[in-house]
Amino acid sequence: MITPQTLKGFRDFLPKDALKRQYVIDKIRRVFERYGFDPLETPALEYAETLLGKYGDEADKLLYLFEDNGGRSVGLRYDQTVPLARVIAQYQNDLPFPFKRYQIQPVWRAENTQKGRFREFLQCDIDTVGTVSALADAEIIACSLTAFGQLGFTDTMVLVNDRTLFDNLNLTKKEIIIIDKLEKIGRGEVIRQLSAAGRDKADDILTKLGESKPTEKLSQIFSTLESYGFTQGKDVQFSPFLARGLDYYTSSIFEVKIPAYSAGSLAGGGRYDKLIGTFIGSDVPAVGIAFGFDRIVEALNELSLLPESSTTTQILLTVFDPTFTKNSAVTTAVLRNAGVNAETYPEPVKLDKQLKYADRKGIPYVVIQGPDEAQRGVVKLKDMNAKTQEELTVAA
Amino acid sequence: MITPQTLKGFRDFLPKDALKRQYVIDKIRRVFERYGFDPLETPALEYAETLLGKYGDEADKLLYLFEDNGGRSVGLRYDQTVPLARVIAQYQNDLPFPFKRYQIQPVWRAENTQKGRFREFLQCDIDTVGTVSALADAEIIACSLTAFGQLGFTDTMVLVNDRTLFDNLNLTKKEIIIIDKLEKIGRGEVIRQLSAAGRDKADDILTKLGESKPTEKLSQIFSTLESYGFTQGKDVQFSPFLARGLDYYTSSIFEVKIPAYSAGSLAGGGRYDKLIGTFIGSDVPAVGIAFGFDRIVEALNELSLLPESSTTTQILLTVFDPTFTKNSAVTTAVLRNAGVNAETYPEPVKLDKQLKYADRKGIPYVVIQGPDEAQRGVVKLKDMNAKTQEELTVAA
Repeated sequence: MITPQTLKGFRDFLPKDALKRQYVIDKIRRVFERYGFDPLETPALEYAETLLGKYGDEADKLLYLFEDNGGRSVGLRYDQTVPLARVIAQYQNDLPFPFKRYQIQPVWRAENTQKGRFREFLQCDIDTVGTVSALADAEIIACSLTAFGQLGFTDTMVLVNDRTLFDNLNLTKKEIIIIDKLEKIGRGEVIRQLSAAGRDKADDILTKLGESKPTEKLSQIFSTLESYGFTQGKDVQFSPFLARGLDYYTSSIFEVKIPAYSAGSLAGGGRYDKLIGTFIGSDVPAVGIAFGFDRIVEALNELSLLPESSTTTQILLTVFDPTFTKNSAVTTAVLRNAGVNAETYPEPVKLDKQLKYADRKGIPYVVIQGPDEAQRGVVKLKDMNAKTQEELTVAA
Repeated sequence: MITPQTLKGFRDFLPKDALKRQYVIDKIRRVFERYGFDPLETPALEYAETLLGKYGDEADKLLYLFEDNGGRSVGLRYDQTVPLARVIAQYQNDLPFPFKRYQIQPVWRAENTQKGRFREFLQCDIDTVGTVSALADAEIIACSLTAFGQLGFTDTMVLVNDRTLFDNLNLTKKEIIIIDKLEKIGRGEVIRQLSAAGRDKADDILTKLGESKPTEKLSQIFSTLESYGFTQGKDVQFSPFLARGLDYYTSSIFEVKIPAYSAGSLAGGGRYDKLIGTFIGSDVPAVGIAFGFDRIVEALNELSLLPESSTTTQILLTVFDPTFTKNSAVTTAVLRNAGVNAETYPEPVKLDKQLKYADRKGIPYVVIQGPDEAQRGVVKLKDMNAKTQEELTVAA
C-alpha cells in the first residue's frame, strides 16, 4: 500500500476551496479583459538557461531545476515575467505592440515553507510591453484597483514609488534592500543596519528620502489615474521608502495593500525596462504587476467575501427504490436541459443515506418521489437549509 | 544574450489560441457542473512513489521524475486519476461519497513528440468514486455527450465495451493490446499478431468477440442513457473490440469519437474498481473519463467551431495629441464602467500607427477625436472590419 501524502508546501484544493479559487480567478480575469489585457499561457518547464540569472544571485537555490530524460537542463516556471520576456523575444514579429497580456498560472519555488508561503502557488499577472508611457503604468494600477474593488475589497491602497529616487541618492542595492524593511523593522533598526553597512549619516538619507517629491514619471501616473477616477491619498499614495526586492525594476514600483489585511501586500509590480533586453539584445520597456493569489483568497476569506458553497449542484434527485431509477433519471435530464445543476443519487439505498449525502455535499434542494407521491402526480421538494418541504405537481 | 526557445513538446499559447482554449474550458466546465461534478485541484508535483507502478511497466520512462532540493524523489503529474486516488485515500473522512469531481489541469509525459502529441497537455476529467452503480457509468457518458454537443459537435458517438468480455474468453493482457489495434491495423494483421503471440484459432476468437452480446452492466448503462435521452446506435454503441490500453480498467470502457475527426478518439475512460485500493488498502469502485483537450480544440478548429477573435478588447480609444490624453482616458473609464472592454492607446503617436495597432491586435472598433471633433462635441467611431465610420455625439 502506498502512503497517500502531498509534498510539503504543496496543496490539494477540495471542491469548497477550489470553487472559491475559481470564483476569484473568474472575477480577476473579467477585469483584466475589461482593461484590454489578453490571455497568454507558457509551459511549466523552461530551459534552465532561460530561468537562471534573471532573479538575482540567491534565486537558483529557489528554482526547481533538473535534467530531463533527454539530458537537457530544465526548470519549473518561477514567475511569469521571465517567460513573458522570452515570449516577447521569440514572437516579436507576430505580436501587436504595445503587447498587453494577462497570465494566470502556477509557479514553483523551492523555498522554506511557512504560514502563507507555499512551493506551488498561483500567480495572476498583467504586463504591458513596448511603451515607456506613464499611461501604461497608470493602467496597470487602475486595473489592479478595479480588480480589488470587484472582489469586494474596500479601502484598497496602491503605494507607489520611483526607483530612480534611490539612484539620485546613490543608494546601493544592498542599502535599498535594508530600506525596504523599514515598515517591518522600524526606522531605528534601518539606520543601524545602514550604518553597519558602511553608510555615513544614514539618518540624513532617510530624512532626505522621506522629503522626496514624486518624480515627473510618478506625477504623470497620478494625473492619468485621476482621469480614470482614482484619487491620490485615497486610492494611490506616493511612498518614498517603498523599495521592493527584485533587481529588475528600473523606475515606478507599486504595491497593493488592504488595511484590513495586515499580513503583507496583495500585489506588487513596477516598470522593468531592461529585463526583456537580456533575451532580445536591445532594451524593450515594460511595466506590470503580479497578484498574490493565495493572499488575496486568504484576505477575502477573513473578510467573508467569498461564496461558501461546497458544491455547484443545486438539486439532488433521490431514488426511492429500483423501480424509480428511471423516473429520477428522466427528471434529472429535464432539469439539466433547463439549465439546473442536478444529479441523480446513483443507488436506491435508504432515503436517509441519500439525504445525508446531500447534506454532506452541501446540495441545497432534494427531490423525493415514492409510490404515494407518484400516484398523486407530485414530488416532495426538500429545502435542506430551511429544513422545510413542499409538494410540487409534476408537469405532464 | 539568452536564446529564446521553448522545449520540444512544450507550447506557448498566444492570445488568439489562449482565448480559444479558454472558450472550450468554460463550456466544458459548465457541463461538468450541470451534471453535479465539483472542481478538484492537485499539485503538479507528487512523491515519485505515488506516481510509480500505477501505469504499467513502461510508464516510468514516460514520467518526469527528479530529486528535489530536499532529496525527495518527486515527479510531475502524469494523469489526474492517480492523484484522485491519492486524494480519496487522504481525505476519505472529509469527502461526501459518492464523490464526483472534475479536474482540469496540465499533465506531463516524457514521450516522443509527434504531430498532436505533446509533453505538456491539458486534461479534463470527470470521475465518480464510491459506487458500483451503472447509473454512475451512464452519467459519465451522458455528461460527455452533452459536453461535446455544447461545443457544437454533431454526430458524437460513444463506443462502449466491457472488459469482462475479454476475461470470459481468457484473453491475456498482451492479446487485449493486440485486439485494441483492430481498427488501425485491420483484422488480418490482428489475427497474424495473435497467432504469433501463441493464440490458437485467433480467427475464432475475433468472431466470438464480434458476436458478443452487451453484458448485464452495459445493458443497464444503455437503459439509463435512454432515460437521459441518448439513443443506442445513434449516441452510444456497443463495440466488442474496443479494448483501451490502460491496465487499470475492470469493467465498462468507453471512447468518444467524432466522424468528422479521423485522428483518433477525443475522450476515453471506463470503470476502475481496483486502482484506489492501492492507496487505501481495500477496493473503492470508481468510473470516469478523460477528455483529450488538445484533440478537441484541434477538431473544433478544423470544423470552424471556435471563436476567431484574437483579443477581448472591443474598442480602442486613440490619442490625437498629448492634450487629448486626458479626454481619451476619461472616455475609456466611462466605457469600462459600462462593461465594455476598452483601452487607451498609451502614446500620442501618429494616428496611422494607432490604427495599425488596433488592426494587428484585432480590435473591432476605434474611437478618434481630434480638435475638429472635440469642438463639435462628437467622436468618430471606426468599424475596423466593415471599414466604415460614423460620428457619435458625446453625452454631456
